[in-house]
Amino acid sequence: MTLNNASWIDRSLLKAVRRAVGTAPISLALPHVEDRPSTTSSPIGTIRIADRATLTGLVMNPEVVFGDAYSDGRIEVDGDLVRVLESIFPSSRVVRNWRWRMMSKWLAWAQANSRYGSSRNVHHHYDLPTEFYRLWLDELMVYTCAYFPNQDTSLEEAQKAKLDLVCRKLWLRPGETVVEAGCGWGALAMYMAEHYGVKVKAFNISHEQIRVAREVAEQKGLSSMVEFVEDDYRNITGRYDVFVSVGMLEHVGREHYPELSRVIQRTIGDQGRGLLHFIGRCRSLPFSVWIRKRIFPGAYAPTLRESMEVLEPAPFYVLDVEDLRPHYAKTIEHWLSRFDRAYDTVVDRHGTNFARMWRLYLAGSIAAFRVGTLQLFQVVFTGAHCPSVPSTRSRLYSSISQNQDKLDDELWTPAMS
Amino acid sequence: MTLNNASWIDRSLLKAVRRAVGTAPISLALPHVEDRPSTTSSPIGTIRIADRATLTGLVMNPEVVFGDAYSDGRIEVDGDLVRVLESIFPSSRVVRNWRWRMMSKWLAWAQANSRYGSSRNVHHHYDLPTEFYRLWLDELMVYTCAYFPNQDTSLEEAQKAKLDLVCRKLWLRPGETVVEAGCGWGALAMYMAEHYGVKVKAFNISHEQIRVAREVAEQKGLSSMVEFVEDDYRNITGRYDVFVSVGMLEHVGREHYPELSRVIQRTIGDQGRGLLHFIGRCRSLPFSVWIRKRIFPGAYAPTLRESMEVLEPAPFYVLDVEDLRPHYAKTIEHWLSRFDRAYDTVVDRHGTNFARMWRLYLAGSIAAFRVGTLQLFQVVFTGAHCPSVPSTRSRLYSSISQNQDKLDDELWTPAMS
Repeated sequence: MTLNNASWIDRSLLKAVRRAVGTAPISLALPHVEDRPSTTSSPIGTIRIADRATLTGLVMNPEVVFGDAYSDGRIEVDGDLVRVLESIFPSSRVVRNWRWRMMSKWLAWAQANSRYGSSRNVHHHYDLPTEFYRLWLDELMVYTCAYFPNQDTSLEEAQKAKLDLVCRKLWLRPGETVVEAGCGWGALAMYMAEHYGVKVKAFNISHEQIRVAREVAEQKGLSSMVEFVEDDYRNITGRYDVFVSVGMLEHVGREHYPELSRVIQRTIGDQGRGLLHFIGRCRSLPFSVWIRKRIFPGAYAPTLRESMEVLEPAPFYVLDVEDLRPHYAKTIEHWLSRFDRAYDTVVDRHGTNFARMWRLYLAGSIAAFRVGTLQLFQVVFTGAHCPSVPSTRSRLYSSISQNQDKLDDELWTPAMS
Repeated sequence: MTLNNASWIDRSLLKAVRRAVGTAPISLALPHVEDRPSTTSSPIGTIRIADRATLTGLVMNPEVVFGDAYSDGRIEVDGDLVRVLESIFPSSRVVRNWRWRMMSKWLAWAQANSRYGSSRNVHHHYDLPTEFYRLWLDELMVYTCAYFPNQDTSLEEAQKAKLDLVCRKLWLRPGETVVEAGCGWGALAMYMAEHYGVKVKAFNISHEQIRVAREVAEQKGLSSMVEFVEDDYRNITGRYDVFVSVGMLEHVGREHYPELSRVIQRTIGDQGRGLLHFIGRCRSLPFSVWIRKRIFPGAYAPTLRESMEVLEPAPFYVLDVEDLRPHYAKTIEHWLSRFDRAYDTVVDRHGTNFARMWRLYLAGSIAAFRVGTLQLFQVVFTGAHCPSVPSTRSRLYSSISQNQDKLDDELWTPAMS
């Protein structure tokens, strides 16, 4: 094979990748060939591909090969990784070719969220050593979207603001009981108990997270108020005033929404209230295959319409839906910048491949929330006979002291209206 | 037939009605027989039925016969009509027997919201003389759910607060263009132009409402800012920054959601934003047959899930959903009390049957919103490439002057985040 011939093949393959990335203002490069975008003279970045085998893989199976080759260093990105991904994402429809769809279906089957499957899926991600997450999360270890009341709110403040927002949206009152499905390291459960005087029973199937959560609750003297249970959400029993789940619906799997619906029905009945906080979409689509292979096995982000499969069977009354997309983009920007500061430590402990894989996952998530392929929905709902509901949302935006005083005035009791 | 025999038949029929109303604490009475509730010694009201024929009808076809017999005086209700209806509604599942379902299907066919059908359906309700509605609506003639920031807000203030809430939710800016589908007597269109400096094109197929709206716009000197078009929403053309529709989705009919979706897509594209305000449900169910026969031909109140059939095909991004159920109950309480004050005038102009029919419709609507068989959803959405979105909802709860100042700070522009 002559060099000319080689170059012709490479150029053809590069052109195929170019078609896939559409009008993204980026350069594509092999060691000796570069394809510059036709749309701009100043590209925002360059994707450097180590060899023809990787390039061929990129044409055949763009998403997975990009992820894996970036992780092991066969692909390098010059320029701001987030901006480069952001520029590629809008044209990602090309990515979902027949190989992608076959792999997506296979993963959906192999990673199904049965009781055993859920346990294995959760173990893959959440049972990583807590010390790893401590490197780049906030001090309360909240691994879900924060809430930034202002542009300059810090991550620590924004996570507390999110926990408080959830409590306010649920108008918690001292002495009430709450059940939490999927509690991470327990930050929300402990915040509710400490600041709102409620008793919380919190479920999680991550052994590592439950272990740490119990330790922290002990240290904070909250063990009598918060009980952490290492078990599947499907095993929740008992009656509570409130059901809450932050960042778990993504891991339930759409085929299990009816099960989750029944769990909520039997725990809060028709008098209680609840909140679901989850990564969603505006168009029905399977999760990224690469993310499911390497990061979140079994993950699925529902549209708002699909998420109603959890709430409409009861039926629950939906009071409030908020899309916190800008807040998740900002949250992960904080995570990524902390991750980058701790990068060498991550490499030392987990190796370069792992570090690069996680960096790509975080950067890709920022891009997805910026571009809007992902959303973050908070949905507040009540049972059909919840005795009273807040008549406006203004308490969510008043100061905390005002909030507590005003609650009673603001509750609407249908029978007395 | 002996009196004994008669009384036995009547008692059996009363028992059948009793079964249908479940545990409602109400008495049921024929001229010479009364059936008191077993659950309480102090019933909240009595439903007096004039004769056995009406009673038989009530057993066979409860909803329609109750509505029609109440309207023409064969049924009287002692006690608070709203509370009596409220006590009956939770057991209304019995009402939907096979006769109800057949009639419901027939109405769905006969009242389908084709272009011609919509025009005929809308004419039935909205082309009543404006003077009739003036008797019991607020001064701006807003015939949709108001917004009560406080318990003691007046109806006039609450309707203005609603108009302003809609404008804030859409973060209108001077010079922008808005298209409104289903504009009533034009209150929202004029409010937007007057207070937010936007140009509005507002569509409605009610000849009477458009005639009045144009008159008022002329008087207010707003004719250059607001154009009222007597035409079907399906005929909307042109490009706008914002699409808004308050109280029209109920009249679109679910089979026409894809058409509405296309109208919104072509008017605001993927950069615009919009708001849908509509009566919804938490469980998928046809509208009351009696209401469709006598009051709102062709009406359908979708669940949130069903309403997404309008927004997900684009896809549009849903930013915010609020259930204003308590506010609609309160709004109609105001309407009913004004209606009652003007009752004699209504009877003089339209006859007793009409006045009683409307009284039942208003009272029944209050009961439905109190009990929760009806909800009122406001859904805010944007195109997938809307250049910026508000990052929090706090501007909805600040004073108007703060609101305008803060808007620029609060908008989130993904590409710059």
